[in-house]
Amino acid sequence: MIAPIQIEGAARKGRCVVICEHASNALPAPWGDLGLSAAQREAHIAWDPGALGLAKGLAEALDAPLAHACQSRLIYDLNRPPQHAGAMPERSEVHDIPGNIGLNEAARAERTEALYLPFHAELRALIARRLARGVAPVIVTVHSFTPVYFGQRRDVELGIIHDADATLAQAVLAEAQARTGLDARLNEPYSGADGVTHTLALQATPMGLPNVMLELRNDLIADPQAQAAMAATLAPVLQAAIARIETQTGEAA
Amino acid sequence: MIAPIQIEGAARKGRCVVICEHASNALPAPWGDLGLSAAQREAHIAWDPGALGLAKGLAEALDAPLAHACQSRLIYDLNRPPQHAGAMPERSEVHDIPGNIGLNEAARAERTEALYLPFHAELRALIARRLARGVAPVIVTVHSFTPVYFGQRRDVELGIIHDADATLAQAVLAEAQARTGLDARLNEPYSGADGVTHTLALQATPMGLPNVMLELRNDLIADPQAQAAMAATLAPVLQAAIARIETQTGEAA
Repeated sequence: MIAPIQIEGAARKGRCVVICEHASNALPAPWGDLGLSAAQREAHIAWDPGALGLAKGLAEALDAPLAHACQSRLIYDLNRPPQHAGAMPERSEVHDIPGNIGLNEAARAERTEALYLPFHAELRALIARRLARGVAPVIVTVHSFTPVYFGQRRDVELGIIHDADATLAQAVLAEAQARTGLDARLNEPYSGADGVTHTLALQATPMGLPNVMLELRNDLIADPQAQAAMAATLAPVLQAAIARIETQTGEAA
Repeated sequence: MIAPIQIEGAARKGRCVVICEHASNALPAPWGDLGLSAAQREAHIAWDPGALGLAKGLAEALDAPLAHACQSRLIYDLNRPPQHAGAMPERSEVHDIPGNIGLNEAARAERTEALYLPFHAELRALIARRLARGVAPVIVTVHSFTPVYFGQRRDVELGIIHDADATLAQAVLAEAQARTGLDARLNEPYSGADGVTHTLALQATPMGLPNVMLELRNDLIADPQAQAAMAATLAPVLQAAIARIETQTGEAA
C-alpha cells in the first residue's frame, strides 16, 4: 500500500514546516482509478497541479521540512475532516467521481484510517518534536487553483488564506504586494469560512503557531522552471513576513 | 512502559466521547517519582482527584467510550501542548517539581513522543472512526479542581468551560442551573483563555464538534459513592443540553 505521507528534509533547521496535501494525482491500489478518464486524472480535481514543485522549491529555499501526500485528493482529501462531503467527494466541480458514489461506512472508515489519520499523526509528530525542542514552527500549506472554475475566469494569482489567526497572512499579503508583481489577495479565491483550512485548524491553531495557506493560480506554475521561479519569488516574501510578525510581537511568534 | 492511553467501551454507541486527561497520579518508570513526597503525589498537583470515577460513571450512563491517561500530569500534562510551561511543569501551585527542573530538549521530546503524541493520536482515531461512520460525537472532558488554591477558597462547584464554540457549554450551564443545586458557573475557576482547553482545541474545534470541559470541585467527588452520585446528577444535564443545542440548530449538531 502507498505511504500515507512523505516527509523530505525532516532534519532541516529553518523556522517553517511546508505542507502539500494535494501534491499527487496518483490513484494507487487498493482504490484504483475511481472510474475516472485519463483527462480527469490529470485535471485539477485530482490534485493541485504544480503545487508539489513549488512546495519543494520553497522548502529548500527556507531550509524547511516538507510533508506531502502521495495519493490523489479524490481518494481522500487530507485537508478535510472525515465527515466532510469533500473528504471523499462524489462530485468535484462538474465531474462525477464514480468510485466515490455511495461509499459505505466501512469504505469511508478504511480510507480515513489508511490515509487521513497517519498523515496528520506523522505531521503532528514532526511539529511536536520541534515544539519540544523549544522551536515554534511556522506552518505553510501550498496549494494551486484552476484559472477557470465553473466556467468563470479567476483574476487573482496568489491567494493568501488564514485560519483563526490572520496575523501571518496579513504580513504575507503586505510583503507580496511590496516585493512582487503578483495579483495577491487575502482569502481569495476562497477562505477558511469555506472549510479549506482544515490542516491549519488541526496542526497550527491548537498549538498557537503562525500559519498561512498559499494558493497559486496553476497556470503560473505549470512547469518545473515556473515552479522554481515562483519559489524564488515567494521564499523572500515568507521570510520578510515572518520577520515582520516577530517585530510586531517583540518575540519569536 | 506504561500505556499512553486507556480506552474503555470503544464500541459504545452513545453520542458522547468522554475524556479524562488527569485521571491518574501514577509515576511509573522510566520517569519515577520526580522527587515528590508521598503527600505531594496524592495532592491535586499530581492529578485531578475523583475525576476518573466521575468520568467512568458518566461514560457508562451516557453509553460513551472513555479515554483516560495512565500517568500523572506532572510527567506530561496531556491537556497542554509540548512547548507550554505546564506540559512538564517545574513548579505547580506552591510546589517545586524536582524531577522536572531544567529538563533538556531530549527529555522533553522523549516524554512528548512517549505520552502526548500517542494519547492524542489514539483519541483522534477514536473520534475519526465515528465521524467516518456519519456520527458527530460530542466531546466532554472531565476534570476536578482543588477547593483551596494559593490559599484562596473557591465557591464555584461546577465549572463549565468551552473552547472557541460556547454553544454546548451555555446549554450545560442552563440545564445544570435548572436541574441541580450546584453552584455552576461558565468559565470558572478558569477559562480557555488560560490555556486549559487544549484537548478541546485539538480534538473538537477543528472537527466542528460540540464540546465542553466539566470541572468539579474535588471535595464533592471525594469517594466512589460521591462520584457515582455526581455522575447520576450530571448525565441527564448533558443529555438535556445536547438535546437543547440540537433543537436550536434543527439538526444533529
